[in-house]
Amino acid sequence: MSLSPLLQELISALRTLPGVGPKSAQRMALHLLERDRTGAQTLAEALVQAVEHIGECQVCRNLSERERCGICEDGTRDRGVVCVLESPVDLMAVEQTGGFNGVYFVLKGHLSPIDGIGPDELGLEQLFTRVDGGEVSELILATNPTVEGEATAHYIAEQLQQTHVNITRIAHGVPVGGELEFVDGGTLAHAFAGRRSLKRSADD
Amino acid sequence: MSLSPLLQELISALRTLPGVGPKSAQRMALHLLERDRTGAQTLAEALVQAVEHIGECQVCRNLSERERCGICEDGTRDRGVVCVLESPVDLMAVEQTGGFNGVYFVLKGHLSPIDGIGPDELGLEQLFTRVDGGEVSELILATNPTVEGEATAHYIAEQLQQTHVNITRIAHGVPVGGELEFVDGGTLAHAFAGRRSLKRSADD
Ligand SMILES: [Zn+2]
Ligand SMILES: [Zn+2]
Repeated sequence: MSLSPLLQELISALRTLPGVGPKSAQRMALHLLERDRTGAQTLAEALVQAVEHIGECQVCRNLSERERCGICEDGTRDRGVVCVLESPVDLMAVEQTGGFNGVYFVLKGHLSPIDGIGPDELGLEQLFTRVDGGEVSELILATNPTVEGEATAHYIAEQLQQTHVNITRIAHGVPVGGELEFVDGGTLAHAFAGRRSLKRSADD
Repeated sequence: MSLSPLLQELISALRTLPGVGPKSAQRMALHLLERDRTGAQTLAEALVQAVEHIGECQVCRNLSERERCGICEDGTRDRGVVCVLESPVDLMAVEQTGGFNGVYFVLKGHLSPIDGIGPDELGLEQLFTRVDGGEVSELILATNPTVEGEATAHYIAEQLQQTHVNITRIAHGVPVGGELEFVDGGTLAHAFAGRRSLKRSADD
């Protein structure tokens, strides 16, 4: 097909978006060019700004354009309760439940020795230092209920066994084998409410 | 939710794409920022280039970054057969059947007096001038099989009743009430093969 080369490039670029096949990419490109050129320019600018300025929060590793993200800087959030998640998309899912008022730590992955992802890659030293700081009273392990997510949660719980921090795991309610980001807000809120301690109690 | 403002802007910009809801926009933004920043930059650049340089072919009104599009410039295409379409997305659908070797004229719409879209807005004068030029032997009216598409086809056929050009309408095969762009290639090829003349023959 003799398409305009620039149109072809735009279609390929749109296909790199998750969930966008050849047909949708085509429709998107034509929609932008035929009906929404201003929208196309706005999107281009938003992409450039986001890539250039969005880095990582120095406290929680969430996506942020400043040194500390909006959540870490928010004085109304309870810094004593830290929710540990695998990714920013999970963080957004939890935030959207509106039922959590603590802060976060984003691992950006899970332990996976076969892929060379160990404690260092997940920033665990930084998390443990934060716990040692004394401000944290509870660590909610909200990694995905997958084999790797569970292993990561248990590794963290094990490492902190000797501290005085309360360590909890979100309740089942999140479907086993599922991904947090696809869980509806109600289920997720329920899972948070039903979280249980992973730490051996003194009378065990 | 305390999202990074630039991330929020990127998510809104992505939502202007057709078929992209809030959840997909979020996943796209995070995918780009977490896993494909190069892809984000490529997309931004492709958008800027496309918006800046893609205009309209002076001959057929197809999207083109040059004065004449690749199809109008292609010496192997039969310029005697002109397919009249409502939009560039329809043109792409026909091209993808691989079964049409003529050229095009893109109306960019259909007659719709209520919206102020008349013959001028569809470039019909330009089409009629092209027909008068003598190079065209057949005009295939491939507007959508909707009320407006049919009305537009009949208007064009009526205007050219006194010329020697053969005027055909693509066959039913394209589902009535449907849109060309959603029809599979096989049906579309079939519709082309079964096209019929709309011109009254001398012995009518
Ligand atoms: Zn933060
Ligand atoms: Zn052209």
